[in-house]
Amino acid sequence: MGNNIVFNDKNSLLRDHEIEGMKSQLELVHNELHSKTGKGNDFLGWLDYPSSFDRQEFERVKSAAKKIRKDSEILVVAGIGGSYLGARAVIESLKHSFSELLPREKRNSPHILYVGNNLSSNYIMELLEVIRGREISLNVISKSGKTIETSISFRILREYMEKTYGERARDRIYVTTDRHNSAIGDLAKLEGYQTFTIPGDIGGRYSVFTSVGMLPVAVAGFDVDEIMRGASDAQIEYSEPDIEKNPCYRYAVERNALNRRGKDVEILTIYDPSLQYLAEWWKQLFGESEGKDGKGILPMSLCFTTDLHSMGQYIQDGKKNLFETVINVEKPKKDFYMFADNENLDGLNYLSGKTVDFINKKAMEGTMKAHVDGGVSNLMITIPELNEYYIGKLLYFFQKACAISGYMLGVNPFDQPGVEDYKRNTIELLKADEKKMNLNII
Amino acid sequence: MGNNIVFNDKNSLLRDHEIEGMKSQLELVHNELHSKTGKGNDFLGWLDYPSSFDRQEFERVKSAAKKIRKDSEILVVAGIGGSYLGARAVIESLKHSFSELLPREKRNSPHILYVGNNLSSNYIMELLEVIRGREISLNVISKSGKTIETSISFRILREYMEKTYGERARDRIYVTTDRHNSAIGDLAKLEGYQTFTIPGDIGGRYSVFTSVGMLPVAVAGFDVDEIMRGASDAQIEYSEPDIEKNPCYRYAVERNALNRRGKDVEILTIYDPSLQYLAEWWKQLFGESEGKDGKGILPMSLCFTTDLHSMGQYIQDGKKNLFETVINVEKPKKDFYMFADNENLDGLNYLSGKTVDFINKKAMEGTMKAHVDGGVSNLMITIPELNEYYIGKLLYFFQKACAISGYMLGVNPFDQPGVEDYKRNTIELLKADEKKMNLNII
Repeated sequence: MGNNIVFNDKNSLLRDHEIEGMKSQLELVHNELHSKTGKGNDFLGWLDYPSSFDRQEFERVKSAAKKIRKDSEILVVAGIGGSYLGARAVIESLKHSFSELLPREKRNSPHILYVGNNLSSNYIMELLEVIRGREISLNVISKSGKTIETSISFRILREYMEKTYGERARDRIYVTTDRHNSAIGDLAKLEGYQTFTIPGDIGGRYSVFTSVGMLPVAVAGFDVDEIMRGASDAQIEYSEPDIEKNPCYRYAVERNALNRRGKDVEILTIYDPSLQYLAEWWKQLFGESEGKDGKGILPMSLCFTTDLHSMGQYIQDGKKNLFETVINVEKPKKDFYMFADNENLDGLNYLSGKTVDFINKKAMEGTMKAHVDGGVSNLMITIPELNEYYIGKLLYFFQKACAISGYMLGVNPFDQPGVEDYKRNTIELLKADEKKMNLNII
Repeated sequence: MGNNIVFNDKNSLLRDHEIEGMKSQLELVHNELHSKTGKGNDFLGWLDYPSSFDRQEFERVKSAAKKIRKDSEILVVAGIGGSYLGARAVIESLKHSFSELLPREKRNSPHILYVGNNLSSNYIMELLEVIRGREISLNVISKSGKTIETSISFRILREYMEKTYGERARDRIYVTTDRHNSAIGDLAKLEGYQTFTIPGDIGGRYSVFTSVGMLPVAVAGFDVDEIMRGASDAQIEYSEPDIEKNPCYRYAVERNALNRRGKDVEILTIYDPSLQYLAEWWKQLFGESEGKDGKGILPMSLCFTTDLHSMGQYIQDGKKNLFETVINVEKPKKDFYMFADNENLDGLNYLSGKTVDFINKKAMEGTMKAHVDGGVSNLMITIPELNEYYIGKLLYFFQKACAISGYMLGVNPFDQPGVEDYKRNTIELLKADEKKMNLNII
């Protein structure tokens, strides 16, 4: 296995002939995807991005990151959805669990704070409170440059930075956007901000390997070369058409098979809280790609063993409309041995000499057995360890699986027409209110 | 309306006669609950707890909190499920969004860190790194005193504290547990730790108003008297049998009606990230109470507008097996006005003179309209503002609604038999491994 991601379906509760029966469909959609003849084929820039990306832009990202790491205590990332979830997924997976409480010399990176991902006045004001008096930089990320949440936060932060830094504000503002038709891009040109490009043929939820994801990740101190190496290996490995040799395709096929059996909910199960944002990124990827035309598997995520004490009862004994996909990380970042205690009043001496990660793994096995015994199908994706290389590989694994899965479901996995409705309504309501206000003033 | 929680169902898409048809069932279960003749009636201590709680214990909680606030920079809370989610729900709702980054003088409270809620070796080791060299106290919370996650963390932290503080460790360890049959309780007696009691007739997910929740909340600097006042008012208001006068019952009845229509998933929707743990607490409450006997509504939560850019597409246009319950907070904690900009390149000048919270509310309206137009039923629970009183009221609202709802569904909302399976398996696997190891040594 070595440096591979392993897919384990021995607890899928599927029959061999179900997979067999879907092989011709898989072949079809594999060809559609790779010949770029399927739905949404103008948004396939992500497919060979790891081998074809712009090396010059990548070097500019690394230089900017180096500067920010030197001159800033905080990097504020303004973006929403695909414009921040990828970066955050990688950063939270790799960073110290309590980095906010570590002194600078133990942290090795600026704090990364996120804004423009909600409209909470409370959140935005408290962000302003906490950056005051500290050296900051700002990376604003929006493909269209028109996203309302991000634009509002950007307007507020830009004013703050101009007041604080005057002319020098421009050296601390970094704009990641589309090269064309971007309001924020126009502003960047006018003000002289450094800009990075979101390729036009890559949608937000497939953009983590572009500057969208890589600039904040590099600022956080992680090795973006290794991430791209993982993604690049994944691009090659997961272009293998034969399902028997391609764990990514196997995952895509089996989740479709389970959905056709009436399993409408997929729970991504993690055993380490640091993977929470990886799960959030995964939810956007699959939910936004597949949830359309009245179809799709509803993606949700749980962190075990934490949530065994909240949602465990439902999974074990509630409605059987769901299946689980477990992310298993073989080697923990840090580990230690349990020790014996003279009194042994807690009765835990039987654990002494075992590591905490070993106990976590046994909890994972025990949980899987309990849920499978309860009739819940279980798929497992194992990565050797949580580092840049495997994160890169895993993110590409999911992107490719999502494209294949969406095609098998019969949807366009690269558009999101339903996201526009709330935006249109909101802007209408706000503009209607403006008219009313103007009327009142007159 | 004044100081009431308001329930709005004008977008439920239910017909009046559906509610009408469930009134007799409601009457039945109301009587069962209040006469304590229904299922699980040995776990109804929560029902009149806000009016009957032990005032002496409550004063002890406040004294202990005062001491901890004075002598500790960090309070570590060790507990899982119902033994920490209530406290965390209240604390995260009320605290500063970035309190970890605020200097002590601006914080007005120790940091609250959580442990014993997972088996991640990485998480536990990083917690040890971050508490080193700082004054800490520890509140370990476990009803049975045997929960494996909490016991493991407690063993590790106790050793750390004894090494650090020697004899004085005992003055910094606080144990919240059942009075009887608790391994941790026995240890506390032996070592002389101060203990607080979890009443035997209150289950974990209904325990937020006991010392389980109130000690950490008081340490975080919030007014526990006000929380209990809110709960106490709620106890009276929501004992009203008439659904027309009882928003809590109306919520319980309508979610059941939607479930009977085939809506298997309830999404709790919040518009402020500070409510994230309130949603986690809600998920445990309903998931663990109702997810049994192959029944139950699967509870999930989303934070808007953040998740409109990830899960919005699915809700708008995916499978229609879900409904939404929105928590609407009328008055924000902090707010500010958008301002005009000379260049207006972002085109946002039409928002100047409006507050950010106003924009958030319009997004909420716009989203609701979009989702309802898309066929998704919407229930809304409005609270006047996020403060101790209304949080207390809201938590009781959900507890009561959950009990009524579970009875209407036909389950015992106070047990959790399915949670035991993974525990049993895990301990078996660990003990089997111990035998094997001993065998190898021989």
